[in-house]
Amino acid sequence: MTAPLAYQPDPKLDLVLERVTEASPERVWLAWTQPEHLKKWFAPRPWTTEECEVDLRPGGIFRTVMRSPDGKEESRNTGCYLEVVKHQKLVWTIALEPGFRPAKSSGIPSFTATILLEPRGKGTKYTAIAMHQDAAGAQRHAEMGFHEGWGTVFNQLVEVAQTL
Amino acid sequence: MTAPLAYQPDPKLDLVLERVTEASPERVWLAWTQPEHLKKWFAPRPWTTEECEVDLRPGGIFRTVMRSPDGKEESRNTGCYLEVVKHQKLVWTIALEPGFRPAKSSGIPSFTATILLEPRGKGTKYTAIAMHQDAAGAQRHAEMGFHEGWGTVFNQLVEVAQTL
Repeated sequence: MTAPLAYQPDPKLDLVLERVTEASPERVWLAWTQPEHLKKWFAPRPWTTEECEVDLRPGGIFRTVMRSPDGKEESRNTGCYLEVVKHQKLVWTIALEPGFRPAKSSGIPSFTATILLEPRGKGTKYTAIAMHQDAAGAQRHAEMGFHEGWGTVFNQLVEVAQTL
Repeated sequence: MTAPLAYQPDPKLDLVLERVTEASPERVWLAWTQPEHLKKWFAPRPWTTEECEVDLRPGGIFRTVMRSPDGKEESRNTGCYLEVVKHQKLVWTIALEPGFRPAKSSGIPSFTATILLEPRGKGTKYTAIAMHQDAAGAQRHAEMGFHEGWGTVFNQLVEVAQTL
Protein backbone atom coordinates (compact mmCIF):
# COMPACT_ATOMS: atom_id res chain seq x y z
CA MET A 1 0.00 0.00 0.00
CA THR A 2 1.32 3.46 -0.79
CA ALA A 3 2.27 5.73 2.08
CA PRO A 4 -0.72 7.61 3.52
CA LEU A 5 -1.07 11.24 2.54
CA ALA A 6 0.41 13.53 5.14
CA TYR A 7 -2.37 15.60 6.64
CA GLN A 8 -1.66 19.31 6.98
CA PRO A 9 -4.27 20.85 9.31
CA ASP A 10 -5.16 24.47 8.83
CA PRO A 11 -6.69 25.98 11.99
CA LYS A 12 -8.51 28.66 9.97
CA LEU A 13 -10.21 26.12 7.74
CA ASP A 14 -10.50 22.94 9.81
CA LEU A 15 -12.66 21.99 12.78
CA VAL A 16 -11.19 19.20 14.88
CA LEU A 17 -12.55 16.92 17.61
CA GLU A 18 -10.07 14.81 19.56
CA ARG A 19 -11.09 12.23 22.14
CA VAL A 20 -9.77 9.11 23.83
CA THR A 21 -12.09 6.21 24.54
CA GLU A 22 -11.80 2.73 26.00
CA ALA A 23 -13.80 1.40 23.07
CA SER A 24 -11.49 -0.43 20.68
CA PRO A 25 -10.78 0.80 17.12
CA GLU A 26 -12.60 -2.27 15.79
CA ARG A 27 -15.78 -1.42 17.71
CA VAL A 28 -15.61 2.27 16.83
CA TRP A 29 -15.15 1.27 13.18
CA LEU A 30 -18.24 -0.98 13.29
CA ALA A 31 -20.25 1.87 14.82
CA TRP A 32 -19.21 4.21 11.97
CA THR A 33 -19.67 1.76 9.08
CA GLN A 34 -22.69 -0.47 9.82
CA PRO A 35 -26.01 1.34 9.28
CA GLU A 36 -27.84 -0.62 11.99
CA HIS A 37 -25.27 0.66 14.52
CA LEU A 38 -24.72 4.12 13.06
CA LYS A 39 -28.44 4.89 13.30
CA LYS A 40 -28.24 4.53 17.08
CA TRP A 41 -25.73 7.36 17.65
CA PHE A 42 -25.34 9.62 14.59
CA ALA A 43 -28.02 12.22 15.42
CA PRO A 44 -27.77 14.21 18.65
CA ARG A 45 -30.66 13.02 20.85
CA PRO A 46 -33.56 13.51 20.90
CA TRP A 47 -33.20 13.64 17.10
CA THR A 48 -33.12 10.20 15.47
CA THR A 49 -31.52 8.78 12.35
CA GLU A 50 -34.38 7.30 10.36
CA GLU A 51 -32.45 6.18 7.28
CA CYS A 52 -28.83 5.28 6.68
CA GLU A 53 -27.18 3.97 3.54
CA VAL A 54 -23.51 2.93 3.40
CA ASP A 55 -21.55 1.67 0.39
CA LEU A 56 -18.15 1.48 2.03
CA ARG A 57 -15.65 2.14 -0.75
CA PRO A 58 -14.23 5.18 -2.59
CA GLY A 59 -17.10 6.70 -4.55
CA GLY A 60 -19.71 4.85 -2.52
CA ILE A 61 -22.72 6.51 -0.95
CA PHE A 62 -22.96 7.69 2.65
CA ARG A 63 -26.52 8.90 3.16
CA THR A 64 -28.47 9.72 6.29
CA VAL A 65 -31.87 11.13 7.13
CA MET A 66 -32.20 12.59 10.62
CA ARG A 67 -35.55 13.57 12.09
CA SER A 68 -36.66 15.89 14.87
CA PRO A 69 -38.48 14.46 17.90
CA ASP A 70 -41.86 15.85 16.75
CA GLY A 71 -41.25 14.38 13.30
CA LYS A 72 -41.74 17.72 11.56
CA GLU A 73 -38.15 18.48 10.57
CA GLU A 74 -35.73 16.37 8.60
CA SER A 75 -32.05 16.72 7.79
CA ARG A 76 -31.13 14.79 4.64
CA ASN A 77 -27.45 14.46 3.83
CA THR A 78 -25.69 12.54 1.10
CA GLY A 79 -21.94 12.18 0.92
CA CYS A 80 -19.33 10.23 -1.00
CA TYR A 81 -16.62 8.07 0.60
CA LEU A 82 -13.10 8.91 -0.58
CA GLU A 83 -10.79 6.70 1.45
CA VAL A 84 -11.48 3.59 3.52
CA VAL A 85 -8.73 2.01 5.63
CA LYS A 86 -10.36 -0.53 7.92
CA HIS A 87 -10.07 0.28 11.61
CA GLN A 88 -7.83 3.28 10.86
CA LYS A 89 -9.17 5.96 8.53
CA LEU A 90 -12.46 6.94 6.98
CA VAL A 91 -12.75 9.92 4.65
CA TRP A 92 -16.00 11.16 3.13
CA THR A 93 -17.11 14.44 1.59
CA ILE A 94 -20.32 16.31 0.78
CA ALA A 95 -18.50 18.20 -1.99
CA LEU A 96 -18.99 15.21 -4.33
CA GLU A 97 -22.02 13.02 -4.96
CA PRO A 98 -21.62 9.26 -4.80
CA GLY A 99 -19.78 8.30 -7.99
CA PHE A 100 -17.64 11.47 -7.68
CA ARG A 101 -19.82 14.03 -9.51
CA PRO A 102 -19.33 17.53 -8.02
CA ALA A 103 -22.25 18.20 -5.66
CA LYS A 104 -24.49 21.24 -5.76
CA SER A 105 -24.34 23.62 -2.82
CA SER A 106 -26.54 22.76 0.13
CA GLY A 107 -27.49 24.52 3.36
CA ILE A 108 -24.39 23.17 5.10
CA PRO A 109 -20.93 24.58 4.33
CA SER A 110 -19.13 22.13 2.05
CA PHE A 111 -16.64 19.95 3.93
CA THR A 112 -14.66 16.73 3.85
CA ALA A 113 -14.62 14.64 7.03
CA THR A 114 -11.68 12.50 8.12
CA ILE A 115 -12.12 10.05 11.00
CA LEU A 116 -8.82 8.75 12.34
CA LEU A 117 -8.60 5.83 14.78
CA GLU A 118 -5.34 5.00 16.50
CA PRO A 119 -4.91 2.24 19.08
CA ARG A 120 -4.40 3.63 22.58
CA GLY A 121 -3.86 0.67 24.90
CA LYS A 122 -6.97 -1.42 24.28
CA GLY A 123 -8.90 1.71 23.39
CA THR A 124 -8.83 4.38 20.73
CA LYS A 125 -7.43 7.83 20.16
CA TYR A 126 -10.22 9.33 18.04
CA THR A 127 -9.75 12.34 15.78
CA ALA A 128 -12.53 13.79 13.65
CA ILE A 129 -11.54 16.57 11.24
CA ALA A 130 -13.88 18.63 9.08
CA MET A 131 -11.95 20.37 6.27
CA HIS A 132 -13.75 23.37 4.77
CA GLN A 133 -13.44 25.26 1.53
CA ASP A 134 -12.69 28.56 3.24
CA ALA A 135 -12.58 30.29 6.61
CA ALA A 136 -16.17 31.56 6.27
CA GLY A 137 -17.42 28.00 5.83
CA ALA A 138 -15.46 26.77 8.84
CA GLN A 139 -16.80 29.63 10.95
CA ARG A 140 -20.37 29.05 9.84
CA HIS A 141 -20.10 25.35 10.59
CA ALA A 142 -18.73 26.18 14.04
CA GLU A 143 -21.62 28.58 14.65
CA MET A 144 -24.08 25.89 13.54
CA GLY A 145 -22.76 23.89 16.52
CA PHE A 146 -20.03 21.62 15.14
CA HIS A 147 -18.16 21.19 18.41
CA GLU A 148 -21.20 20.61 20.61
CA GLY A 149 -22.88 18.37 18.04
CA TRP A 150 -19.91 16.21 17.09
CA GLY A 151 -18.87 16.03 20.77
CA THR A 152 -22.33 14.91 21.87
CA VAL A 153 -22.66 12.25 19.20
CA PHE A 154 -19.19 10.97 19.97
CA ASN A 155 -20.38 10.16 23.48
CA GLN A 156 -23.40 8.44 21.92
CA LEU A 157 -21.05 6.52 19.61
CA VAL A 158 -19.02 5.27 22.56
CA GLU A 159 -22.18 4.00 24.30
CA VAL A 160 -23.09 2.05 21.17
CA ALA A 161 -19.52 0.80 20.53
CA GLN A 162 -19.37 -0.69 23.99
CA THR A 163 -22.38 -2.90 23.20
CA LEU A 164 -20.76 -4.39 20.08
CA MET B 1 -10.62 -5.74 -5.29
CA THR B 2 -14.25 -4.67 -4.91
CA ALA B 3 -16.41 -4.49 -8.02
CA PRO B 4 -15.98 -1.21 -9.91
CA LEU B 5 -18.70 1.39 -9.45
CA ALA B 6 -21.23 1.22 -12.23
CA TYR B 7 -21.10 4.46 -14.19
CA GLN B 8 -24.44 6.04 -14.97
CA PRO B 9 -23.97 8.69 -17.67
CA ASP B 10 -26.32 11.62 -17.76
CA PRO B 11 -26.39 13.31 -21.17
CA LYS B 12 -27.57 16.60 -19.66
CA LEU B 13 -24.66 16.75 -17.23
CA ASP B 14 -21.83 14.82 -18.86
CA LEU B 15 -19.56 15.57 -21.81
CA VAL B 16 -18.08 12.46 -23.41
CA LEU B 17 -15.27 11.82 -25.89
CA GLU B 18 -14.96 8.32 -27.35
CA ARG B 19 -12.13 7.25 -29.60
CA VAL B 20 -10.31 4.12 -30.75
CA THR B 21 -6.55 4.15 -31.23
CA GLU B 22 -3.87 1.67 -32.16
CA ALA B 23 -1.80 2.88 -29.23
CA SER B 24 -1.90 0.28 -26.44
CA PRO B 25 -3.55 0.95 -23.06
CA GLU B 26 -0.11 0.76 -21.44
CA ARG B 27 1.25 3.53 -23.67
CA VAL B 28 -1.84 5.70 -23.31
CA TRP B 29 -1.56 5.25 -19.52
CA LEU B 30 2.10 6.35 -19.56
CA ALA B 31 1.15 9.42 -21.58
CA TRP B 32 -1.53 10.37 -19.01
CA THR B 33 0.50 9.69 -15.85
CA GLN B 34 4.13 10.66 -16.48
CA PRO B 35 4.68 14.44 -16.42
CA GLU B 36 7.50 14.35 -18.97
CA HIS B 37 5.12 12.73 -21.45
CA LEU B 38 1.94 14.53 -20.45
CA LYS B 39 3.57 17.92 -21.06
CA LYS B 40 4.00 17.01 -24.74
CA TRP B 41 0.27 16.63 -25.50
CA PHE B 42 -1.97 18.08 -22.77
CA ALA B 43 -2.35 21.63 -24.12
CA PRO B 44 -3.86 22.16 -27.58
CA ARG B 45 -1.02 23.45 -29.78
CA PRO B 46 0.35 26.04 -30.10
CA TRP B 47 -0.24 26.36 -26.34
CA THR B 48 2.32 24.49 -24.26
CA THR B 49 2.29 22.80 -20.87
CA GLU B 50 5.04 24.45 -18.90
CA GLU B 51 4.55 22.69 -15.57
CA CYS B 52 3.05 19.37 -14.60
CA GLU B 53 2.89 17.72 -11.20
CA VAL B 54 1.49 14.22 -10.66
CA ASP B 55 1.10 12.31 -7.38
CA LEU B 56 -0.68 9.28 -8.74
CA ARG B 57 -2.90 8.06 -5.90
CA PRO B 58 -6.28 8.99 -4.41
CA GLY B 59 -5.92 12.44 -2.88
CA GLY B 60 -2.74 13.13 -4.82
CA ILE B 61 -2.12 16.30 -6.80
CA PHE B 62 -2.68 16.69 -10.53
CA ARG B 63 -1.44 20.16 -11.45
CA THR B 64 -0.72 21.76 -14.79
CA VAL B 65 0.27 25.19 -16.06
CA MET B 66 -0.46 25.83 -19.72
CA ARG B 67 0.89 28.87 -21.55
CA SER B 68 -0.10 30.74 -24.67
CA PRO B 69 2.36 30.92 -27.61
CA ASP B 70 3.20 34.59 -26.88
CA GLY B 71 3.77 33.71 -23.24
CA LYS B 72 1.27 36.32 -22.03
CA GLU B 73 -1.56 34.04 -20.90
CA GLU B 74 -1.48 31.15 -18.50
CA SER B 75 -4.03 28.55 -17.47
CA ARG B 76 -3.26 27.10 -14.06
CA ASN B 77 -5.27 24.09 -12.95
CA THR B 78 -4.99 21.93 -9.87
CA GLY B 79 -6.98 18.78 -9.36
CA CYS B 80 -7.13 15.81 -7.03
CA TYR B 81 -6.94 12.16 -8.13
CA LEU B 82 -9.82 10.01 -6.84
CA GLU B 83 -9.30 6.61 -8.38
CA VAL B 84 -6.27 5.03 -10.06
CA VAL B 85 -6.54 1.62 -11.74
CA LYS B 86 -3.37 1.10 -13.75
CA HIS B 87 -3.95 0.84 -17.50
CA GLN B 88 -7.74 0.94 -17.00
CA LYS B 89 -9.20 3.91 -15.16
CA LEU B 90 -8.11 7.32 -14.01
CA VAL B 91 -10.48 9.62 -12.12
CA TRP B 92 -9.61 13.14 -11.02
CA THR B 93 -11.62 16.18 -10.01
CA ILE B 94 -11.25 19.93 -9.70
CA ALA B 95 -14.03 19.99 -7.09
CA LEU B 96 -11.53 18.94 -4.40
CA GLU B 97 -8.01 20.15 -3.68
CA PRO B 98 -5.24 17.58 -3.29
CA GLY B 99 -5.81 15.99 0.13
CA PHE B 100 -9.59 16.11 -0.47
CA ARG B 101 -10.43 19.61 0.84
CA PRO B 102 -13.41 21.08 -1.09
CA ALA B 103 -12.02 23.47 -3.72
CA LYS B 104 -13.07 27.06 -4.20
CA SER B 105 -14.85 27.94 -7.42
CA SER B 106 -12.63 28.79 -10.38
CA GLY B 107 -13.26 30.12 -13.87
CA ILE B 108 -13.94 26.64 -15.19
CA PRO B 109 -17.20 24.83 -14.37
CA SER B 110 -16.50 22.26 -11.67
CA PHE B 111 -16.14 18.76 -13.06
CA THR B 112 -14.79 15.28 -12.39
CA ALA B 113 -12.93 13.57 -15.24
CA THR B 114 -12.93 9.83 -15.83
CA ILE B 115 -10.52 8.33 -18.37
CA LEU B 116 -11.38 4.74 -19.28
CA LEU B 117 -9.02 2.51 -21.28
CA GLU B 118 -10.23 -0.81 -22.65
CA PRO B 119 -8.11 -3.13 -24.80
CA ARG B 120 -9.28 -3.21 -28.42
CA GLY B 121 -7.09 -5.70 -30.25
CA LYS B 122 -3.59 -4.39 -29.56
CA GLY B 123 -4.98 -0.87 -29.25
CA THR B 124 -7.34 1.03 -26.98
CA LYS B 125 -10.96 2.03 -26.80
CA TYR B 126 -10.61 5.42 -25.10
CA THR B 127 -13.44 7.14 -23.25
CA ALA B 128 -13.06 10.50 -21.53
CA ILE B 129 -16.03 11.69 -19.47
CA ALA B 130 -16.41 15.06 -17.77
CA MET B 131 -19.15 14.94 -15.10
CA HIS B 132 -20.55 18.35 -14.16
CA GLN B 133 -22.45 19.67 -11.19
CA ASP B 134 -25.42 20.78 -13.30
CA ALA B 135 -26.63 21.26 -16.87
CA ALA B 136 -25.50 24.89 -16.94
CA GLY B 137 -21.94 23.86 -16.10
CA ALA B 138 -21.94 21.15 -18.77
CA GLN B 139 -23.26 23.61 -21.33
CA ARG B 140 -20.74 26.29 -20.42
CA HIS B 141 -17.90 23.76 -20.64
CA ALA B 142 -19.15 22.68 -24.06
CA GLU B 143 -19.27 26.33 -25.20
CA MET B 144 -15.72 26.82 -23.89
CA GLY B 145 -14.73 24.20 -26.47
CA PHE B 146 -14.67 20.89 -24.62
CA HIS B 147 -15.23 18.69 -27.66
CA GLU B 148 -12.78 20.47 -29.94
CA GLY B 149 -10.17 20.82 -27.21
CA TRP B 150 -10.31 17.30 -25.78
CA GLY B 151 -10.53 15.87 -29.33
CA THR B 152 -7.48 17.81 -30.48
CA VAL B 153 -5.35 16.87 -27.48
CA PHE B 154 -6.38 13.24 -27.86
CA ASN B 155 -4.76 13.23 -31.31
CA GLN B 156 -1.69 14.83 -29.73
CA LEU B 157 -1.74 12.14 -27.01
CA VAL B 158 -1.77 9.38 -29.64
CA GLU B 159 1.27 10.91 -31.39
CA VAL B 160 3.14 10.90 -28.08
CA ALA B 161 1.94 7.43 -27.04
CA GLN B 162 3.27 5.94 -30.25
CA THR B 163 6.80 7.14 -29.37
CA LEU B 164 6.78 5.41 -25.98
